[in-house]
Amino acid sequence: MESKNIVQQNYKITKGDRAKLLHQKPAVLWFTGLSGSGKSTLADALEVKLHNEGFKTYLLDGDNIRFGLNKNVDFSDEGRKENIRRIGEVAKLMTDAGLIVLTAFVSPFQSDRNLVRNLLPEGSFTEIFVDCPLEVCEQRDVKGLYKRPALEK
Amino acid sequence: MESKNIVQQNYKITKGDRAKLLHQKPAVLWFTGLSGSGKSTLADALEVKLHNEGFKTYLLDGDNIRFGLNKNVDFSDEGRKENIRRIGEVAKLMTDAGLIVLTAFVSPFQSDRNLVRNLLPEGSFTEIFVDCPLEVCEQRDVKGLYKRPALEK
Repeated sequence: MESKNIVQQNYKITKGDRAKLLHQKPAVLWFTGLSGSGKSTLADALEVKLHNEGFKTYLLDGDNIRFGLNKNVDFSDEGRKENIRRIGEVAKLMTDAGLIVLTAFVSPFQSDRNLVRNLLPEGSFTEIFVDCPLEVCEQRDVKGLYKRPALEK
Repeated sequence: MESKNIVQQNYKITKGDRAKLLHQKPAVLWFTGLSGSGKSTLADALEVKLHNEGFKTYLLDGDNIRFGLNKNVDFSDEGRKENIRRIGEVAKLMTDAGLIVLTAFVSPFQSDRNLVRNLLPEGSFTEIFVDCPLEVCEQRDVKGLYKRPALEK
C-alpha cells in the first residue's frame, strides 16, 4: 500500500554486507509439485547437504507458515494466491538477510510462482518441479487428500 | 488456521543446528516509540555495531515490510494489529533461521507487543522503548505526521 505514512530510510548495512558476512550468494530454491510428490522430503535432504557444507539455509513450508504467518489465510483461490505471495515476500526478506531459502509448497499456478520470481533479483530464484506421476502421489497420499473426495461422495 | 490440509513433518536441520552454524543466540530486539523518536536510527546504529562484530542480523522496518509483505494491510486499528502480528511471525521465522532480528515500528499497543513476545522462546524477545519527549518528536517530524492535523484543520 502506497502511503504518506512511509518514508524511505537509508540503512548502513546492506544486503551485500550480509551476504558477504555469511560467505554465500543468497538464493531461493522453490520446490513445486503435487501433494505427495516428495517436495518436503527432497527440500529437507537438500537442506541437510547444504547445511553440512556450511551454507546458511532456511526451509519454509506448511509447518512453519500455515500455523503462523498465514494462519488467517484460507484455502480459496484468493487465499492460496495470498499464501504464495506472503511466502514469496518472506523468502525475499530472508535472501535480503543473506540466507539460502528452500520452499516446499504445491504452488500450482505459474502466475503465482512468477510473481515470486519477479520479487527477486535476476538469477536468484530457481524453480524445482518435483515430477512425480499422479498415481504414485495418490498411492502415497501422505495427507489423505486424494482419498477424501471418494469418501465424501 | 487449523486445517486437515496440514500434516506436520519432521525436518532434520533444527533451529539449534542453524544457530550453531551462525555462532550466535538468535534474538529479537524490538524497538518501540513515537514517530520521530529515533527507533530506526538507533536500530541502524546497533545493526552496524553487531554486524561489525560478526553477528548475523536483519533489520525489519516500514521500508521492507510496508511495501512488500504488508502492502495489503491498511492503517485501521485492525490493520495495525495485523501489521505487527505479521512482523512478529517473520521475526520468529528469522530467529528460527538463526538470525538476530532488529525491528523498528511504532507498535503502540502493549497487547500487540506481548503477542510477539509470546511467539518466541522465553528470553529471546527484548523490548526497547525509545523514550523521546513528544515535543522533540514533533520538532523533528521526520514523516510530517505531527504537522498534518494542523494543516488539515
